[in-house]
Amino acid sequence: MWSCITDFFTYETTKSVVVKSWTIGIINRVVQLLIIIYFIGWVFVHEQAYQIRDTAIESSVMTKVKGFGLSNNRVMDVAEYVTPSQGASVFCIITKVITTENQMQGECPESEKKFICTHNDNCTRFLNKAGGNGLPTGRCVPFNNTHNTCEIKGWCPAEIDDVKTSPMMEVENFTIFIKNSIRFPLFNFTKGNFLPTITTQYINTCNFDQENNTYCPIFKVGDVIRYAQQNFTKLAQKGGVIGIKIGWVCDLDKSEDKCSPSYSFTRLDAMSEKNQVSVGYNFRYAKYYKMDNGTDYRTLIKATAIRFDVLVNGNAGKFDMIPTLINMVAAFTSVGVGTVLCDIILLNFLKGAEQYKAKKFEEVHFKVSDTQIKRSISSNGLYRSRERNAVENRSNDSGAFSIGQYG
Amino acid sequence: MWSCITDFFTYETTKSVVVKSWTIGIINRVVQLLIIIYFIGWVFVHEQAYQIRDTAIESSVMTKVKGFGLSNNRVMDVAEYVTPSQGASVFCIITKVITTENQMQGECPESEKKFICTHNDNCTRFLNKAGGNGLPTGRCVPFNNTHNTCEIKGWCPAEIDDVKTSPMMEVENFTIFIKNSIRFPLFNFTKGNFLPTITTQYINTCNFDQENNTYCPIFKVGDVIRYAQQNFTKLAQKGGVIGIKIGWVCDLDKSEDKCSPSYSFTRLDAMSEKNQVSVGYNFRYAKYYKMDNGTDYRTLIKATAIRFDVLVNGNAGKFDMIPTLINMVAAFTSVGVGTVLCDIILLNFLKGAEQYKAKKFEEVHFKVSDTQIKRSISSNGLYRSRERNAVENRSNDSGAFSIGQYG
Amino acid sequence: MWSCITDFFTYETTKSVVVKSWTIGIINRVVQLLIIIYFIGWVFVHEQAYQIRDTAIESSVMTKVKGFGLSNNRVMDVAEYVTPSQGASVFCIITKVITTENQMQGECPESEKKFICTHNDNCTRFLNKAGGNGLPTGRCVPFNNTHNTCEIKGWCPAEIDDVKTSPMMEVENFTIFIKNSIRFPLFNFTKGNFLPTITTQYINTCNFDQENNTYCPIFKVGDVIRYAQQNFTKLAQKGGVIGIKIGWVCDLDKSEDKCSPSYSFTRLDAMSEKNQVSVGYNFRYAKYYKMDNGTDYRTLIKATAIRFDVLVNGNAGKFDMIPTLINMVAAFTSVGVGTVLCDIILLNFLKGAEQYKAKKFEEVHFKVSDTQIKRSISSNGLYRSRERNAVENRSNDSGAFSIGQYG
Repeated sequence: MWSCITDFFTYETTKSVVVKSWTIGIINRVVQLLIIIYFIGWVFVHEQAYQIRDTAIESSVMTKVKGFGLSNNRVMDVAEYVTPSQGASVFCIITKVITTENQMQGECPESEKKFICTHNDNCTRFLNKAGGNGLPTGRCVPFNNTHNTCEIKGWCPAEIDDVKTSPMMEVENFTIFIKNSIRFPLFNFTKGNFLPTITTQYINTCNFDQENNTYCPIFKVGDVIRYAQQNFTKLAQKGGVIGIKIGWVCDLDKSEDKCSPSYSFTRLDAMSEKNQVSVGYNFRYAKYYKMDNGTDYRTLIKATAIRFDVLVNGNAGKFDMIPTLINMVAAFTSVGVGTVLCDIILLNFLKGAEQYKAKKFEEVHFKVSDTQIKRSISSNGLYRSRERNAVENRSNDSGAFSIGQYG
Repeated sequence: MWSCITDFFTYETTKSVVVKSWTIGIINRVVQLLIIIYFIGWVFVHEQAYQIRDTAIESSVMTKVKGFGLSNNRVMDVAEYVTPSQGASVFCIITKVITTENQMQGECPESEKKFICTHNDNCTRFLNKAGGNGLPTGRCVPFNNTHNTCEIKGWCPAEIDDVKTSPMMEVENFTIFIKNSIRFPLFNFTKGNFLPTITTQYINTCNFDQENNTYCPIFKVGDVIRYAQQNFTKLAQKGGVIGIKIGWVCDLDKSEDKCSPSYSFTRLDAMSEKNQVSVGYNFRYAKYYKMDNGTDYRTLIKATAIRFDVLVNGNAGKFDMIPTLINMVAAFTSVGVGTVLCDIILLNFLKGAEQYKAKKFEEVHFKVSDTQIKRSISSNGLYRSRERNAVENRSNDSGAFSIGQYG
Repeated sequence: MWSCITDFFTYETTKSVVVKSWTIGIINRVVQLLIIIYFIGWVFVHEQAYQIRDTAIESSVMTKVKGFGLSNNRVMDVAEYVTPSQGASVFCIITKVITTENQMQGECPESEKKFICTHNDNCTRFLNKAGGNGLPTGRCVPFNNTHNTCEIKGWCPAEIDDVKTSPMMEVENFTIFIKNSIRFPLFNFTKGNFLPTITTQYINTCNFDQENNTYCPIFKVGDVIRYAQQNFTKLAQKGGVIGIKIGWVCDLDKSEDKCSPSYSFTRLDAMSEKNQVSVGYNFRYAKYYKMDNGTDYRTLIKATAIRFDVLVNGNAGKFDMIPTLINMVAAFTSVGVGTVLCDIILLNFLKGAEQYKAKKFEEVHFKVSDTQIKRSISSNGLYRSRERNAVENRSNDSGAFSIGQYG
């Protein structure tokens, strides 16, 4: 019982061979130094492994667009060209509209060229097929004085969407105001993109640029598009999606002031640039009206727009005991990993490798069978019993060898 | 000083015992092989641990629905049945509407059965309670020739929402066109779901299916619902939410062509199938009109809809030195972990365990006190001083033991 | 060839020194115990490292608001005060409106004080600048009997947005009904926030609170705002963004019933509280009408609103062989890390450290040159050949030393 406890409270450590050689000594220390540099420089300083990180950033974005555009001699304001109107993180600024006024339920000829017909038979192939402006009836009816097209049932007259219109160029000078609050729930840390240094007066006059006004929350549409390396005219003509990314990477061990947003801009629908299939961004919506007699009519609007997605991401770190300890233990034990490399060098490439092997390795041969064990015990008496049933024990350890010699 | 430097540039490695036994040798090598197979097969080939991964995928989704439906003998087009109209990643296709026309601010009787009353007293319990179609006035007024209901103040007449209407079955043949651009910011890699192999002609005619047209970006609503293992009729009747997931898992060490989207479909509001409380998906909105005298009136619409959420996720990996090195070091050092298992076997289950223990372990007894040390030094002269203050040193090392014997 | 195979199937393990000392034995075991406690308590029980985790939660949120409000003696219902109307995870409840009726395209005087003028020259500075209610024409025109303001072109009359209106206080009693389905795709596990224990009757009567009704999916707006530690009146007056967070942390090794949502509430635009620049949340939208003669006119609405963001996050874990094995191996090997600490103590602070060093370290000196090796072999005959070319081999190993003594 007592001996069990005694046996339990022992300490077992590896027996080490200390090689006093300049070559391998220097290699060893250099390798260890590299490992230490890796841990201090990369793991601790660069990756800040002594911190716990909160990546579950909570964010709220509010946006407000300002500016007036001229379209078909009408002045368009925010309530007209921004949709959806709620001022959320995703919004479209309409740059070009094709309006089809006074549409009513009824029958009318198609507007597109591919529906041109001379006889009802030309139109039957469109039955039960989508693609036009309504349900095909299968009849061929006059479109204008020159040609006939297939008839549809639906909202009439059909939209003529190949009208050439020029986009609203004033959009380039519109400003987008972004209010972004973030919170790191783990540290209960809250901040906004209006830094405390920003005054009301500054906000009323500033415009974001990447040199002097990196924290101004007001962005000119033209600037945003230029920073995303796009051409405004092309984009306004075809439509597209621009990402405004707000990055918050915060080291909460430092002063709160150092936790600042960084803005970057990118075109999100970059595919549209490469591929010629279905370029740009547009959508259709309608405004509904009623006549005095209760009949519905509507204005159909095909809007080409620039969509802005405000994307917020970030993470924050703060000193914490657990990751610090774990990484320090990892660093300490990793220093020993250098041994693997040094052993390979020492055992294979260095002069005296054989001699080193002799010191490092101690061989034990087992060719054990019950009968053998018994025989050996009886014949070798005291010595073998001390050797604890070792049969044919040969060892390269110099000490053990000398025994064989001197025994 | 010089001896300090000499002492510093030494190399310390563990002294090893090499056991020449077939049994343990084979076990050892098999365990090492398993560890190597695990690292090569799982960590390097399967998990691609030699790559850095970018999981912060940037994505932009544009959608366009096509098709015409018939509802109450009216033809409905995209501008009418898709909401919100911006063609973003989340959109609803309305399958069924209950319209209440010509609502105006005023007082009128409730429409639901639970509000049937015979006397004002029946209605007082509804005061200050939500749940009906307006603010209760507490009066009991005639609803029609047969019965009275409690009166409300609000938009009148009250909506009758238990009308049985059949959903718009044409929705099954509507097509959803999805344009998805992604970007991995770490590698500045951009791609879209229109693969370069896709021609304009193919897009005009193709329909996604899971066998032959896995990269066609046009989806029939009926197919999507079937792939999500739902029944269209039920879904159109009650409404629901379908997820269209686009997964991008890219190995950027391979050709860019191998980085392709994979589409999968699932019902997101699966709870609705299990639970009978509040099934389906519907919402109310209104179209506002004005009379010549300036009075507002509206058409209230209760729409049952199928909502589609296009969810994009993905990550990309590319060869990088740092993770490769870290994982190779981890692999090399982990091979040594096999020793733990082999030691357990060797020390406990193998014949010759005792003998092996004798070779592996070398015991040192410390019962140190200053007086003891001094005494032992004085009595044992030269030998003990060479043993460097070891008192009662007994060792199981065979070499050391033999010394005791022969000394 | 055969010897190669024999050499290959050997087993190499470290030679250990077992120190039988109470002090270091107890330190050793205590350190090992701490490491084991860390692994069992923190890694396995707390962090559940034996599970694979699915963090790619799929979620669908549907919301429905109920209640009636009074604004300017009109009853507002859901279709009027909730926007967007689709019942998605983000929605606004409008608390206050400033309406500007009968706006038409034309010219009219500005409404704000900063545009007051006496002469056209006062107005030229506004040309080509945004900020007002339309495009400045540069003329000074009478606003009312007392003063003139600069003229604009756009939607007229200009909005007067500094009217004091009181918010719709009934909002506090509105209820938000949230239906949330989640799915963990890795485990194909689906659940909803209507727990199976919830009956239809309970849902019709319950209201969420943080003590007794923690699973009721119906939330009073007033409660939500109070749980987010905000003041309703202030919030309704200025607008703001409230986050309703639903957390799903599920241990799928336990019963499915234990996987329940937890609700928490926070103000997302917390910055608005700190900073005085651009407080609150409001946006503008318009309702469009048409006169009999086809002229468009509209009602512009500036709405102050409380926006609710329903944010769903979560992860689920389930027992899996691979992480269990990896972490068990890590635990086993980490127990050995205690040796590092014990060695430091043993080698530096314990009595008998010198003696311990003597046992643990075996020194080998290499001063190898080809000539030296040859010389030493020739002069030392048998002994040196057995020592395998070791030149100037000195060792602190007690066994080896004794050889020197006795040889």
